[in-house]
Amino acid sequence: MLLLRKVVLPGIQQACRLKSTPSRLCIQACSTNDSFQPQHHILAFSGDHSSTKGWRVMGTLLGLGAVLAYHDYQCKAAQEPPRIYTREEVRSHSSPETGIWVTLGSEVFDVTEFVDLHPGGPSKLMLAAGGPLEPFWALYAVHDQPHVREILAQYKIGELSPEDKAPSTLKTSDPYANDPIRHPALKVNSQRPFNAEPPPELLTENYITPNPIFFTRNHLPVPNLDPDTYRLHVVGPPGGQSLYLSLDDLYQFPKHEITVTLQCAGNRRSEMTRFKEVRGLEWNTGAISTARWAGARLCDVLAQAGHQLSEAEAHVCFEGLDSDPTGTAYGASIPLARAMDPEAEVLLAYEMNGQPLPRDHGFPVRVVVPGVVGARHVKWLGKVSVEPEESHSHWQRRDYKGFSPSVDWDTVDFDSAPSIQELPVQSAITQPKDGETIESREVTIKGYAWSGGGRAVVRVDVSLDGGLTWQAAELDGEEQRPRKAWAWRLWQLQAPVPAGKKELNIICKAVDDSYNVQPDTVAPIWNLRGVLSNAWHRIHVHVAP
Amino acid sequence: MLLLRKVVLPGIQQACRLKSTPSRLCIQACSTNDSFQPQHHILAFSGDHSSTKGWRVMGTLLGLGAVLAYHDYQCKAAQEPPRIYTREEVRSHSSPETGIWVTLGSEVFDVTEFVDLHPGGPSKLMLAAGGPLEPFWALYAVHDQPHVREILAQYKIGELSPEDKAPSTLKTSDPYANDPIRHPALKVNSQRPFNAEPPPELLTENYITPNPIFFTRNHLPVPNLDPDTYRLHVVGPPGGQSLYLSLDDLYQFPKHEITVTLQCAGNRRSEMTRFKEVRGLEWNTGAISTARWAGARLCDVLAQAGHQLSEAEAHVCFEGLDSDPTGTAYGASIPLARAMDPEAEVLLAYEMNGQPLPRDHGFPVRVVVPGVVGARHVKWLGKVSVEPEESHSHWQRRDYKGFSPSVDWDTVDFDSAPSIQELPVQSAITQPKDGETIESREVTIKGYAWSGGGRAVVRVDVSLDGGLTWQAAELDGEEQRPRKAWAWRLWQLQAPVPAGKKELNIICKAVDDSYNVQPDTVAPIWNLRGVLSNAWHRIHVHVAP
Repeated sequence: MLLLRKVVLPGIQQACRLKSTPSRLCIQACSTNDSFQPQHHILAFSGDHSSTKGWRVMGTLLGLGAVLAYHDYQCKAAQEPPRIYTREEVRSHSSPETGIWVTLGSEVFDVTEFVDLHPGGPSKLMLAAGGPLEPFWALYAVHDQPHVREILAQYKIGELSPEDKAPSTLKTSDPYANDPIRHPALKVNSQRPFNAEPPPELLTENYITPNPIFFTRNHLPVPNLDPDTYRLHVVGPPGGQSLYLSLDDLYQFPKHEITVTLQCAGNRRSEMTRFKEVRGLEWNTGAISTARWAGARLCDVLAQAGHQLSEAEAHVCFEGLDSDPTGTAYGASIPLARAMDPEAEVLLAYEMNGQPLPRDHGFPVRVVVPGVVGARHVKWLGKVSVEPEESHSHWQRRDYKGFSPSVDWDTVDFDSAPSIQELPVQSAITQPKDGETIESREVTIKGYAWSGGGRAVVRVDVSLDGGLTWQAAELDGEEQRPRKAWAWRLWQLQAPVPAGKKELNIICKAVDDSYNVQPDTVAPIWNLRGVLSNAWHRIHVHVAP
Repeated sequence: MLLLRKVVLPGIQQACRLKSTPSRLCIQACSTNDSFQPQHHILAFSGDHSSTKGWRVMGTLLGLGAVLAYHDYQCKAAQEPPRIYTREEVRSHSSPETGIWVTLGSEVFDVTEFVDLHPGGPSKLMLAAGGPLEPFWALYAVHDQPHVREILAQYKIGELSPEDKAPSTLKTSDPYANDPIRHPALKVNSQRPFNAEPPPELLTENYITPNPIFFTRNHLPVPNLDPDTYRLHVVGPPGGQSLYLSLDDLYQFPKHEITVTLQCAGNRRSEMTRFKEVRGLEWNTGAISTARWAGARLCDVLAQAGHQLSEAEAHVCFEGLDSDPTGTAYGASIPLARAMDPEAEVLLAYEMNGQPLPRDHGFPVRVVVPGVVGARHVKWLGKVSVEPEESHSHWQRRDYKGFSPSVDWDTVDFDSAPSIQELPVQSAITQPKDGETIESREVTIKGYAWSGGGRAVVRVDVSLDGGLTWQAAELDGEEQRPRKAWAWRLWQLQAPVPAGKKELNIICKAVDDSYNVQPDTVAPIWNLRGVLSNAWHRIHVHVAP
C-alpha cells in the first residue's frame, strides 16, 4: 500500500486525471456483493436537501487519470515525507467547495474527484465527508477488500497527526448489532447485510420450507418494528386521502392465503462466476424457498385507498422500513396492472407458514408478488404508492436487470434493459451432491423446478450421461392451478447406475407450460451482475467400484 | 412390392401375428406430414353412430407379427398364383365381422388387423372399407409414398378380377379442387392440404405480412362458405339459449383491432429433422407471420350468450367448418379463463389487414388467440362452446404437444403432456441466407423475434463467431404493450466482417421480458412431432476473398 501512495499536487494532478475516463478503476472499486449501494436519487429524500445540492454538480470522470498521475508522480511522492493533518483540518473538508477528505485508520484521503465515481452513489460517500470511513465500512462490509483499499490509496494525501489517531467513536456503532439470531444450518454468503441459503440437502426435504431455513436476502440492517405502532402508509390517488393502516386494519381485509416460491435473481450465481467473474453474492442453488403466505390482497387495499386500474402506464412503488444512513429505504415496484389483477394474487403478507413473519422475512408486513423475482417482495413494508414511473430505487433501476454477455461495466446502460419482474424457468439438482460418490447400483436424483409468471412446470428431464439421453423425472408436490402456478415442483428420479460407469455427469432441465426451456450452458447467458442463472444444472459424481 | 406380397393363411397367420406388438410398423406407416389424421372420437360425430360401433372393439396390435408371418410364408406365397376377387366380394368385407378389405389399383388387401393401427385413426380407414383407397389418398396425399405402400403390401390377399379393374369413379373427385389460387412466392410444403410459407427474404420485408404471402397452415380442404348464409353457432350455457350469429350480428359487437403474430408449432421443424427424423411438414423459418386483425372480442360474444367465468376448470371449444369425409371438423380449445379475459384480447376475427379474411385464412370468421400457438386459431369457425374438458379433437389431444427427446412413437403417452397453448421465445435470421457469400466488408443481419403469452422481446443477441461473442441487435417495429406484446419484433444488426475470416457462423437468440431465452441446441428439445423448435438459429456464410 505504501507503494501506491499518492501525493497532492492539485493542479497538475487534476489536469492529468482529466485526460481520460476512469470506469475501469470504478469497477475495481465496486463490490462483488449484492449489497451494492443505491445511486442517490433526490426524490427518495423526504427532508433536507441542503446536504446534497453541492456535490451533485461535482466531478468529472477521473479514475484512470489518477493512475496516470500516480505514474507521473510516484517518484516524487516517495521522496517526500507524508503531510500531517489534524482531525479538525479533515473535518473542514466536507463539501465540494472545500474538497472532500476522509480518513481510514491514520491515513487521510482527498476523494473529491472520486465522489461521483463511487459505485454506491455519491450520497453514500458524502456521509463520511470530513470524517472516518470505518462506520460506513461496518455497514457495507464489502468495502473491506484489498482492491477497494488499492483504489483508495490512490487518493491518499497524508496522515493524521499522532494525537488524532484514536479510533472514531463511531467505529463501535454496528448497525447490524440488532439483527436477529439465525439458524445455524443456513449457509451464510454475507453477514452484513445478512444473506444466507439453506444447504441443498435440506432445501428439498420439504415442499414448504421451514421458516428458520428459508433463504434470507437482506440489503440493509433488519429493522426492529413495534407491531402496535406499525402503520402502513398507502398513498391515495391525486385528490384522495392516504391510508395509514395498522396491523389490525390489515386483518380486516379478506385474508388470502397462497403457496408461493420466492427466488432471488442471483440464485445459482456461483455457476456464472465459475465462467467469468461477476458482481454479486455467491449464491449456490439455495436462493429459493417456498412458503404458505397469508395476508390482504394488494388489490383490495389499493381499491380501498381509491386506486383504479388506469390505461396509462403506472406502477405500484413499495418502500421498506429498512434504510441506510442517508435515510434511503429499500424500494421496488411492480406494474399497476399486476397489482390490481385479483388473479395475480399480490399479497401484503403478515403470515408465513401460519406464523407472524419472522423478522428476517419482513415482520410485520411484506409484499409477496407471486411469480416475480424476490427483489420486488419488499420486506418491512412502510409505504405503497401508485406512480407513473417505476420506483426510483437503485434496486429497481440500477440493479436486477439482465444484459447481454457482451455488456461490461464500461458499456452497461441500465436504462436499456427492463427491470426483472417474472423470472424464467429454473431447476436444480439437490441430491446427490456435486462430487459425491454413489455407493449403490441405483441413484436417486432429487431437485426442484419452478417458473415465473404463474407458469407451471410440466416436465423435468434428467440425464445421467452429460445430456446425450434423458429421462423424465417424477413431479411431486401440490398440483398447480392454471396460470397461477406460483410454487415449485419438487421432483425425483430413481435410475440404475449405467453399468461400467466410473462417473456420471448428471443434468436436469425443466419445461414450463409455455414450453419454455432452460438454456444448455451458462456462458451465453452470463451477465455482469450474475443474475438469471438458469442454464441446465450439472453435477458430476463418482461411482464406487 | 411383389416380393413383399403376403398370402392369407388366416389361422396360422393370426397366431403368428399375435406373438408380438407391431408399433414399429405403425410408425413406418405414419406420415411425415402435419396433415396427420385425427383419432376418431365419437363425441365429435353429430349423427349416425352405426358405422362406428363395430370396429371400435376390433383388433389387437399386430403389425410386427405380420412381418414374422410374412417371413414364415413368403416362399409359399411366391409359389401360389394370386387369388382373384370381384368388387362385389370386396364390398362384402366392410365390417369387423366379415373382415375389412380394401383395394388399390388392381390389388386387394385384408386390413382387418391394421385398422386399429392406422396412424390416422381407425375411423378414417373404415371409410374405405369394402372399396378403393384412391379417393381417400387423394384427400390425404401423404399416403402415396413408398413406405406406406410397403406396409400395405403386407396385407395383400389377392387381385381384382380383370373385369373389375376400372378405376373407381370416386378417384376423380378431388376434395381440394375447390381450394383457392395461391401466390406463387409461397414455398409449398404440402399441396393437399395446402401448407406453405413465405421465403425468408420476403418474410421480414414488412412488419405486417401481406395477406397473399402470410403462411398458410391447412389441415383439410378449404371450405367455400357463403357470407350471406354463414352463421356462427355459439352454444349457450346449461339451460340457456344458443346464438346463431350472422356476419352482420358479429359486426354489431364492438370492433376490436390488434396486431398479432401467428406461429405454427412446427415452425423451424426442418432443423429438428436434420438432427433426427420427426413426423411433420418440413417448415423452414417461415411458419410465422404478422397481421392486423379485427373482429369481435370472444369475451363479448360469450357474455352475450350468457357465459361467465367459472371457478371450475373450463375450456372454450372451437369447431371449424372444414371437415374430413367422416364429417369430423377441425377443432381446438383454449382455457375459458383466457377466453373471458378482456386483456387477453381473443378475437373472432373477420378482417385481416383491413380486408375480409382470405379464404385460406378462415373466411368469413376465424379465432385469433394472441400469444398462443397457431393451431388454436381455428379458421372457418362454425361453432363455439364452453366445456368442462379440452376439445376432443385429435389436434388438441393427440397432436401439438411437446415431449422429452427420449419419447418415441412406441412410448408416447399423449395424455401425459399439456396441449401447447402459449409458445416459448423464438427468433430466426432471415438475411443473409444460409450458405450465401458475403461480398462486402460489412454484413447486415436481419430477422424476427417473438414470444408467446404477450411477453415482449427485450433483446436479440447476434454472434458472428459461432456463439463466442455477442452483439445486441437493433429492434424495429411497433413498441409493445406490457403483457400484451402479441406481435413480433423485427431486428437487424450491421457489423463489420471480422478481418481474415473466410466464413462466419452466425447465430441469433432472443430474450423475452420474463428473461426466458432460447436453448443453445436442438437435440435436447427434439421431440417426435418436431414441434417447438426454438433453439438458437444458426446459419453459415462464406466471405468473399
